[in-house]
Amino acid sequence: MTKPSSPSLPMEYSDEVAAAKQRGAPIVALESTIITHGMPYPGNLDMARSVEAIIREQGAVPATIAVIHGVLHIGLDDAKLEALSKTQGAMKLSRADLAFAIAERRTGATTVAATMIAAARAGIRVFATGGIGGVHRGAEQSFDISADLDELARTGVIVVCAGAKAILDIPKTLEVLESRGVPVVTYDSENFPAFWSRESGLKSPLMLNSPAAIASFQRTRELLGIDGGMLVANPVPVESEIPREEMEIYITRALDNAASEGISGKAVTPYLLDNLFRLTDGRSLETNIALVENNARLAAGIAVALAAND
Amino acid sequence: MTKPSSPSLPMEYSDEVAAAKQRGAPIVALESTIITHGMPYPGNLDMARSVEAIIREQGAVPATIAVIHGVLHIGLDDAKLEALSKTQGAMKLSRADLAFAIAERRTGATTVAATMIAAARAGIRVFATGGIGGVHRGAEQSFDISADLDELARTGVIVVCAGAKAILDIPKTLEVLESRGVPVVTYDSENFPAFWSRESGLKSPLMLNSPAAIASFQRTRELLGIDGGMLVANPVPVESEIPREEMEIYITRALDNAASEGISGKAVTPYLLDNLFRLTDGRSLETNIALVENNARLAAGIAVALAAND
Amino acid sequence: MTKPSSPSLPMEYSDEVAAAKQRGAPIVALESTIITHGMPYPGNLDMARSVEAIIREQGAVPATIAVIHGVLHIGLDDAKLEALSKTQGAMKLSRADLAFAIAERRTGATTVAATMIAAARAGIRVFATGGIGGVHRGAEQSFDISADLDELARTGVIVVCAGAKAILDIPKTLEVLESRGVPVVTYDSENFPAFWSRESGLKSPLMLNSPAAIASFQRTRELLGIDGGMLVANPVPVESEIPREEMEIYITRALDNAASEGISGKAVTPYLLDNLFRLTDGRSLETNIALVENNARLAAGIAVALAAND
Ligand SMILES: [Mn+2]
Ligand SMILES: [Mn+2]
Ligand SMILES: [Mn+2]
Repeated sequence: MTKPSSPSLPMEYSDEVAAAKQRGAPIVALESTIITHGMPYPGNLDMARSVEAIIREQGAVPATIAVIHGVLHIGLDDAKLEALSKTQGAMKLSRADLAFAIAERRTGATTVAATMIAAARAGIRVFATGGIGGVHRGAEQSFDISADLDELARTGVIVVCAGAKAILDIPKTLEVLESRGVPVVTYDSENFPAFWSRESGLKSPLMLNSPAAIASFQRTRELLGIDGGMLVANPVPVESEIPREEMEIYITRALDNAASEGISGKAVTPYLLDNLFRLTDGRSLETNIALVENNARLAAGIAVALAAND
Repeated sequence: MTKPSSPSLPMEYSDEVAAAKQRGAPIVALESTIITHGMPYPGNLDMARSVEAIIREQGAVPATIAVIHGVLHIGLDDAKLEALSKTQGAMKLSRADLAFAIAERRTGATTVAATMIAAARAGIRVFATGGIGGVHRGAEQSFDISADLDELARTGVIVVCAGAKAILDIPKTLEVLESRGVPVVTYDSENFPAFWSRESGLKSPLMLNSPAAIASFQRTRELLGIDGGMLVANPVPVESEIPREEMEIYITRALDNAASEGISGKAVTPYLLDNLFRLTDGRSLETNIALVENNARLAAGIAVALAAND
Repeated sequence: MTKPSSPSLPMEYSDEVAAAKQRGAPIVALESTIITHGMPYPGNLDMARSVEAIIREQGAVPATIAVIHGVLHIGLDDAKLEALSKTQGAMKLSRADLAFAIAERRTGATTVAATMIAAARAGIRVFATGGIGGVHRGAEQSFDISADLDELARTGVIVVCAGAKAILDIPKTLEVLESRGVPVVTYDSENFPAFWSRESGLKSPLMLNSPAAIASFQRTRELLGIDGGMLVANPVPVESEIPREEMEIYITRALDNAASEGISGKAVTPYLLDNLFRLTDGRSLETNIALVENNARLAAGIAVALAAND
């Protein structure tokens, strides 16, 4: 006897992810705003393919997450990845509007917060991204703080990033994470990184130097019944970094440019990133790609370590 | 064989609400501080009866929520509504003290936060009010932020309001809601309203133009396992609004008056509302009644749409 | 047939606490940073023993909580208590790193936030401490806010303290607790205390004057399904207080000293406490011990009242 069908979530796994789930193989979630809003085509597609390939090389399965025409996709096959990389006008989805895009049959890319929610819903425990959102400079007046921070406090997914983008207020970002009880673990370094740079000038609250140790920490959190996520900060490789002293000169200049052109509100972050691309002759983008690849590698390692102990 | 009786919550449904629950009929929760603290008798009773009548006309059942002599009431019959409208010295209950009033056998009216908790406890998914609490002007120094905002982030009830009262800091209120991942949907307008005015000068994060679409959004959130509430902002009808440009003059004057009379802390909000009543020759109150009625109508429509899909 | 063993949390009850749990006897959790970071040996051991004795005199069982070599201890026998009181370099554990210390087999003392998590995990509902962390002075610029406040909003344990240390920003601490929906109940006084002083100059949001009333409030919160904790502020006995007017002179002086010596960040709080010890000729420490003992007594009373109704 079958129950009357109840409405169900329009959620679709790629064949590769569905198979991985069935055999209990390690999976790494990936966000999609980096594809739709972070880089132009075809660089974004190249990056996305390279990141997925790295995860497979490490013995895990990539699950890029996006809402396409109202369906929440957990894993995109190559045709869908390519189509997404050419999509114009996709929404940029966070906790507040992930369900909105699904209900309204829209197409949207997932930020850190929305990717965490979708990953948790799909039973995926590790997620690789470039950098998380944080406390914006001037937030003591504007109260502009990314929803990523509260999401880390409530959703049990490990987020591997290269720190918070240095255009944010990094000391305040760390303070909010501390107030919210979110572990901040820097991988194999005592210094909390600053996205393009290996150092932010701030010590990391915690440090671990193996994927197995990170997996063990997370398992202990689950055994204790602690329900939030964990931030793993992974400094960009030395050969790809733009050192902090140099980067600060560009950021100061970009902030000056934004101020003199009267840029404000939501327009500030894209303006600064574009400005930094030009001030660094494109190096900021190269570093960005290198750090995402580096994070994918570490995230895959953590996923493998977690799966080994299930 | 009966179990030994365990202590149970002193909670009482009105006959009308109990019957509605039994047949699965749509129910709309209503707060009670608007009755005890928002307007004088007998205007408050007229307003409460009119709001309940509108909900019934739309095919839903009103459930005014209050704590009376230590009993949490979900729905008040007319005699209790009248008695409450004449009550002096009722507590103004929020998350922190809703249970306090029950345990201490006190009488108290519920704010937005406490009404959400009681509604969720009673299985009611939609709630109509005038305006929510928010970030107070000067909160960057005082840290004075209403508990309503955190409640929206954690309790799964749809709150239909006319925005946040314009005496608050509306930009910061929207920032906190964004940081907390609360959807802010304006009904049938791109502009986030400002209680007495149809516009606040700020775009709404999201827009939907039918109760069915709002119900569908909420169902999708539940299917995703997202646990917080949703704010639906419903601009006051044109014929009842006090336009923003005009209202800002009154608000500036009221703020000046408060400053010159040395009003501070918890006394500021009631002082400002009273001052606005006099500066607008009573129009601010007429607008307030019109918007609450308007919100009751929309909330009933959403409750009907939600019930149709259960 | 036995299930394959799954990894379990390294958690160990003292014999006394294990026996109390089995017979449903009242238990009071105690934090351990006061032992490792709050006072020097042997004063810390004397204080810890005296606090445990007071709890036993009141008919409850003390459960001092700490992580020792990676094992979460719920209750320490006298040998372990003595060893902990002599330990150098213990971590100071909060929500973010409690599991870290366990996973990495480290030794750490628990702050208010971590003690609440461990107590809730062990089924202990009341916890006595000296003072909670709060909003630091200057937080409008630094965003430095203790994780204790968010923990109170999410973990259902009653925390008995003597208020927040007066070196914090007490008005802002109360605002954050209000925004987060945390009940703040002062025991038998209308005035919220300030750790060394019976008054902070601020009214308490709520007041109750018996352990039974506090227990009844907490049971009602549980019946309502409200999941967070409750703060019970217990003013230090008159004979042990340093009056507010006097204490403010010392605090102002200590803040001036910190500023002129360029103390900043995490170094500020220990510097101020040490400075106050010297400015008061040791009275600040005597008051600290007296208030912890006073809180242990009240917490035991509440635990007894809660157990009587289970
Ligand atoms: Mn923002
Ligand atoms: Mn307030
Ligand atoms: Mn801090």
